[in-house]
Amino acid sequence: MSADEGTPFKLKGLMQDLGATARAAAAVLRLAPAAQKTKALHAAAHAIKRAAPAILDANASDLKEATSLGPAMRDRLLLDEGRLEAMANGIAQIADLPDPVGRELARWTRPNGLSIARISVPIGVIGIIFESRPNVTADAAALCVKSGNAVILRAGSEALKSARAIAACMREGLAEAGLPEGAVTLVPTADREAVGEMLRGLGGAIDLIIPRGGKGLVARVQSDARVPVLAHLEGNCHVYVDGGADLEMARRIVLNAKMRRTGVCGAAETLLVDRACAATHLAPLLQDLLEAGCALRGDEAAMAADPRVTPASEADWAREYLDAIMAVRVVDGVREAIAHIAAYGSSHTDAIVTQDPAVAARFLNEVDSAIVLHNASTQFADGGEFGFGAEIGIATGKLHARGPVGTEQLTTFKYAVHGTGQTRP
Amino acid sequence: MSADEGTPFKLKGLMQDLGATARAAAAVLRLAPAAQKTKALHAAAHAIKRAAPAILDANASDLKEATSLGPAMRDRLLLDEGRLEAMANGIAQIADLPDPVGRELARWTRPNGLSIARISVPIGVIGIIFESRPNVTADAAALCVKSGNAVILRAGSEALKSARAIAACMREGLAEAGLPEGAVTLVPTADREAVGEMLRGLGGAIDLIIPRGGKGLVARVQSDARVPVLAHLEGNCHVYVDGGADLEMARRIVLNAKMRRTGVCGAAETLLVDRACAATHLAPLLQDLLEAGCALRGDEAAMAADPRVTPASEADWAREYLDAIMAVRVVDGVREAIAHIAAYGSSHTDAIVTQDPAVAARFLNEVDSAIVLHNASTQFADGGEFGFGAEIGIATGKLHARGPVGTEQLTTFKYAVHGTGQTRP
Repeated sequence: MSADEGTPFKLKGLMQDLGATARAAAAVLRLAPAAQKTKALHAAAHAIKRAAPAILDANASDLKEATSLGPAMRDRLLLDEGRLEAMANGIAQIADLPDPVGRELARWTRPNGLSIARISVPIGVIGIIFESRPNVTADAAALCVKSGNAVILRAGSEALKSARAIAACMREGLAEAGLPEGAVTLVPTADREAVGEMLRGLGGAIDLIIPRGGKGLVARVQSDARVPVLAHLEGNCHVYVDGGADLEMARRIVLNAKMRRTGVCGAAETLLVDRACAATHLAPLLQDLLEAGCALRGDEAAMAADPRVTPASEADWAREYLDAIMAVRVVDGVREAIAHIAAYGSSHTDAIVTQDPAVAARFLNEVDSAIVLHNASTQFADGGEFGFGAEIGIATGKLHARGPVGTEQLTTFKYAVHGTGQTRP
Repeated sequence: MSADEGTPFKLKGLMQDLGATARAAAAVLRLAPAAQKTKALHAAAHAIKRAAPAILDANASDLKEATSLGPAMRDRLLLDEGRLEAMANGIAQIADLPDPVGRELARWTRPNGLSIARISVPIGVIGIIFESRPNVTADAAALCVKSGNAVILRAGSEALKSARAIAACMREGLAEAGLPEGAVTLVPTADREAVGEMLRGLGGAIDLIIPRGGKGLVARVQSDARVPVLAHLEGNCHVYVDGGADLEMARRIVLNAKMRRTGVCGAAETLLVDRACAATHLAPLLQDLLEAGCALRGDEAAMAADPRVTPASEADWAREYLDAIMAVRVVDGVREAIAHIAAYGSSHTDAIVTQDPAVAARFLNEVDSAIVLHNASTQFADGGEFGFGAEIGIATGKLHARGPVGTEQLTTFKYAVHGTGQTRP
């Protein structure tokens, strides 16, 4: 497809203008002192509190028009006073994080006397494409501004009015701190072709695209983008209960990993139990899950351990349920657990429960996932829980950032080299 | 274009098989001990020395068939005993670099007692697409193996026989060390559609593509790839001689930055001279360059300083000459120098010459390039000069790696988390 095909000239021009505005703002944000960015975000948080009635009105209007949405999607779209308060507090928390820009990541001196430092710097202009959660407008903008980047936000049509009201507050905060409002830009149209324009990079204006939404959106972005993408694709997470596991700890961890929240990407989807402890551990683990309302799909050993377990199909091992359903399999030790995860996992987050440090070390080394845990719940796969303050998502690719993407992951680096007149022989 | 369009079934099947073989090898390489990788590379270096006659025969055959190549391209393709010796020594040097896998990049403990470590791990399977330099086969394969990755190499048709002979030596080294030969795979066909298949990722087998070649190749890879790309696009590098520069130092640095080697990406293409020192510094700087055989294209001030300077056009400021040609402009201080570089530069490598530390700090902070240097030649933009031992290229994008790409840049990371039974509230 050629760059122009299917894009009305007017939209293309509008999007190119947005790109140029964002790039100009990025050149200022990049060099803005930490205190100025902090001030802008606190001002934005206050602006959201002040503008609460207007934001709720806009949200009510979005909800009224979103007649085709199911209840889960309507809940994602819904704002109320509590959610707005949480949004404003979230921005204030991001404001108070350490500044991720200008950190000295490494420094060394060469034999010729050149002193080389690797310094963190902002990426530039980040495009965020999201669907129905209007709070992404605030979270994503705050994380980008904190890390010195300009952001172009593209909200789903169903959330456009809410997003516009929130973006206005973010821009108000920037203006109050003397920073360019163009650092937070919301695409003003619901035209789907605007996404296509962003994926083509707006003439070199966009450095990175981050999709936030369902698999359909992420897959479209990954297949069509002409600029780098940081994407969260799938979390088919495992808990492996090793023969060396403490039963009580395993029960707590498995129940939490599956049932604390079933809709998050760090929720466990498959339980693997070592045959060495199946006789003692399997039945109580399954009973806890069943009593908590979790449906279980298992292999023959799991079905033998509890008659309520239904048979798992081959497809179940690869499924990200995001629901109160878990697949269960009995494996021959850590080697087979690692092989199962290599075959069916999504390289997101996997945990082992064991008191045996050598087995734990093997699992953590050999499982090729962004996050590997020993004796802890997979639900810790979260930027906040990692101490990043907040996250824009969990990256499932291998380049640039892996796992939770917080403010540090929204920076890149430059090399600053000091010499005393060195020339290269 | 659909994934199958234009690809004969046989080639597609062949390429998918290569991908599967590389992925299986990557699973072994990823966990291989440092000593085993080191041993494989030393064995490969020896194999190249032993196989010198066969490699030179293959190269002679490539050269014989490459009747359409110009002299510069023929020189790139040519191997002789000296170049083979250098190739083998290069592999041995990479073998002896520190192992980049398993480094603890960060470690912290959360208030709940979770201990989180960020550990470097290999990326997986790297696709390298190159043109006529057969030595890329050895360099790239050695860097990938050292960093625990499998590599799929696609040589230009003109270098295919030479590359095949070298790849056989790399595989021999792997086998001698007990590592899978599939970790170094050369695409056995000159069919251009093989590149298309690689750019589509071979069914998820390729994690990263690195093109090594001219702008045409790099542009095709960047526009068509469906997997992440680490690309070296352009080095339009600047030297800014500030009013606070020491004249003798400026003369040495400018001459070296431009003329040491004009064909490398770190060669300076534009000289910016502060109006404050133009009266004293400009004429000698230009004279050095002219006497060294460099053609100069300048603004009016430069033409006034030396009659041999011809007028620069607007296009000259953005040109990467890679030749003994330099554009020259007089600017009003560091602010205008930074603005010129922002307008025309390629964010690769830029240098300032000044004795004023505040001016230097401003330049290094505000110029948005991968490498910024103070009082040193731009020709230091090189992995070897940075102490990386070797490089696969200089990345001009902003994601994952910026600047020289050595073994560390060919790794990613995972989070290894140790708990004592923590569940998430």
